Amino acid sequence: MSEQKLFDVAVVGATGAVGQQIIRLLSERDFPIRELKLLSSARSAGRKIEFKGREITIEEARPESFEGVDIALFSAGGDVSRALVPEAIKHGTVCVDNTSAFRMDPDTPLIVPEVNIDRISDHRGIIANPNCSTIQMVHALKPLYDRYGISRIIVSTYQAVSGAGASAIDEMLRQSREVLEGRQPEPQILPVGSLPKKHRIAFNAIPQIDKFVENGFTYEEMKMINETKKILGDDALEVTATCVRIPVVYGHSESVYVELKEDFDVEEVRRLLADAPGIVLEDNPAEQLYPLATEAAGRNETFVGRIRRDLSNPRALNMWIVSDNLLKGAAWNAVQIAEYIAVQQK
Amino acid sequence: MSEQKLFDVAVVGATGAVGQQIIRLLSERDFPIRELKLLSSARSAGRKIEFKGREITIEEARPESFEGVDIALFSAGGDVSRALVPEAIKHGTVCVDNTSAFRMDPDTPLIVPEVNIDRISDHRGIIANPNCSTIQMVHALKPLYDRYGISRIIVSTYQAVSGAGASAIDEMLRQSREVLEGRQPEPQILPVGSLPKKHRIAFNAIPQIDKFVENGFTYEEMKMINETKKILGDDALEVTATCVRIPVVYGHSESVYVELKEDFDVEEVRRLLADAPGIVLEDNPAEQLYPLATEAAGRNETFVGRIRRDLSNPRALNMWIVSDNLLKGAAWNAVQIAEYIAVQQK
Repeated sequence: MSEQKLFDVAVVGATGAVGQQIIRLLSERDFPIRELKLLSSARSAGRKIEFKGREITIEEARPESFEGVDIALFSAGGDVSRALVPEAIKHGTVCVDNTSAFRMDPDTPLIVPEVNIDRISDHRGIIANPNCSTIQMVHALKPLYDRYGISRIIVSTYQAVSGAGASAIDEMLRQSREVLEGRQPEPQILPVGSLPKKHRIAFNAIPQIDKFVENGFTYEEMKMINETKKILGDDALEVTATCVRIPVVYGHSESVYVELKEDFDVEEVRRLLADAPGIVLEDNPAEQLYPLATEAAGRNETFVGRIRRDLSNPRALNMWIVSDNLLKGAAWNAVQIAEYIAVQQK
Repeated sequence: MSEQKLFDVAVVGATGAVGQQIIRLLSERDFPIRELKLLSSARSAGRKIEFKGREITIEEARPESFEGVDIALFSAGGDVSRALVPEAIKHGTVCVDNTSAFRMDPDTPLIVPEVNIDRISDHRGIIANPNCSTIQMVHALKPLYDRYGISRIIVSTYQAVSGAGASAIDEMLRQSREVLEGRQPEPQILPVGSLPKKHRIAFNAIPQIDKFVENGFTYEEMKMINETKKILGDDALEVTATCVRIPVVYGHSESVYVELKEDFDVEEVRRLLADAPGIVLEDNPAEQLYPLATEAAGRNETFVGRIRRDLSNPRALNMWIVSDNLLKGAAWNAVQIAEYIAVQQK
């Protein structure tokens, strides 16, 4: 083997649900790391995390933390990214940002490697990781977009509570226990931690993820709409989204209606998806085989099934797309991007 | 008050989840009953149920059970209805059938009272109660259909386990306990009791309700498609459905995209819905107000919110429709129909 270049890497938000998955994936993928810096808020600084048999002490993330860092993966919230990504760039660090802070910035590439890795070189120090619910959808639709063209997407999501962080998982499990014991849960976090009203998530479905925009959509829905257009580089694409939180721990599911620009053959659609990188086709009604959140949890792939031609529009099809929102929807997509950066910088 | 005609009424499937709600509603609504016959399978016969302070012994449902019965409400499964509804008709009984057995029969009216009560007189002894997921959708869409016309509906459902019966509720609660205790549940009932493969429902989303049809849709999805057209009397209406079971006990939620035939004003849509019988408008993003399954549970109304104009198609809107699947979706709609029959026979 040729001598490998090694990188100084930082993970910002090292104690969060996504940060922990990033650290696990960097180890599992044998990412060419010389030094790994784990950064967090002051609150978590001082804690130790094991990485490849070594103990690394978490440090508070500060502007000067990025001195000498080649690649930083951010998942500590939009405010942290807005404050520290520009500082990291000053130090020459290439930042993979998992928050929404820079996603719609025209100078920032928004990357799903299987979809638009060709845009990665356009960056000025920041590469944005799309929203979890967007990533798995564009990942699954890309082979159809390339082969037939897509004119319109209508998606309804079934999103896991882990997308709202570890505290939302705790809340959902706690509420579930309370309901099973005949008690009335007192919601504290969901749907949106910073908003006054809380709704019970245990044994319920909440049609609100993130705050509302004036047009009646939520930010989560607008992210799916705008990010999908940006990633596919297609402003004419019509996208509608309804985003719903359901009592699932890991794994977002999506019911997707897609209008294609050309006639298609359903068997060819299945073949295209089966052959696409990172996609697992699970589509056999006779065997009751279709993607399930509980089975996608812990895996890096995007799972697709329930593929069927629409009965009212022969140019449209319906499908069911599932992926682990913390992995392909966040940590794995970010690590994939970091791997491409590493190859470029070799 | 004028002297009221009293009816001999039978409930077939008296021990089931829907049957029990029917009995409760007949009492609560003070249905003009002379004698109430509670019928079930041989297995449950002999059990006693209290009705308005009297104890009624459940009898096994047989062809001769309908002697003298004016109105019978069936919710004991399609096979029981197929066997016994024709026998009841021979005795002059008018049957309200909550199963899918006769719904698509051209001679059988399929009734949601707020939508097409004008068709109730067309019956030849059977009036069919539509599928739960269909009822709440057509109920909420009827005011828009009348005012603007509807060309297309695309719906994704979030359906409660109670739709699969009391044993499915038990299974979901048992599985939830097992997962919370760190155990691996062994699914036994869902998605479809009579099919070989079972999937876990606790903390999951199962994109299969009822068996698959050859076209890749499920029977539940085809019911929504075909029944919606029949109830609205509109074969040209384009309907697409994806039906999904989620871990909710009572209350189906639906994400509905609707294309209208005419321009509309969103505020007028809200007013039309607020004024429609049996509809509760819950639609205020600023207050995080929208329908929730846990809050619709136990209520007879259909709840509508998240109403917003589509961003890509100004003639379309998106909405969130929730109702208790055992009440408006089954028992309440059936009792409403029985009330109309009683008025007709007065």
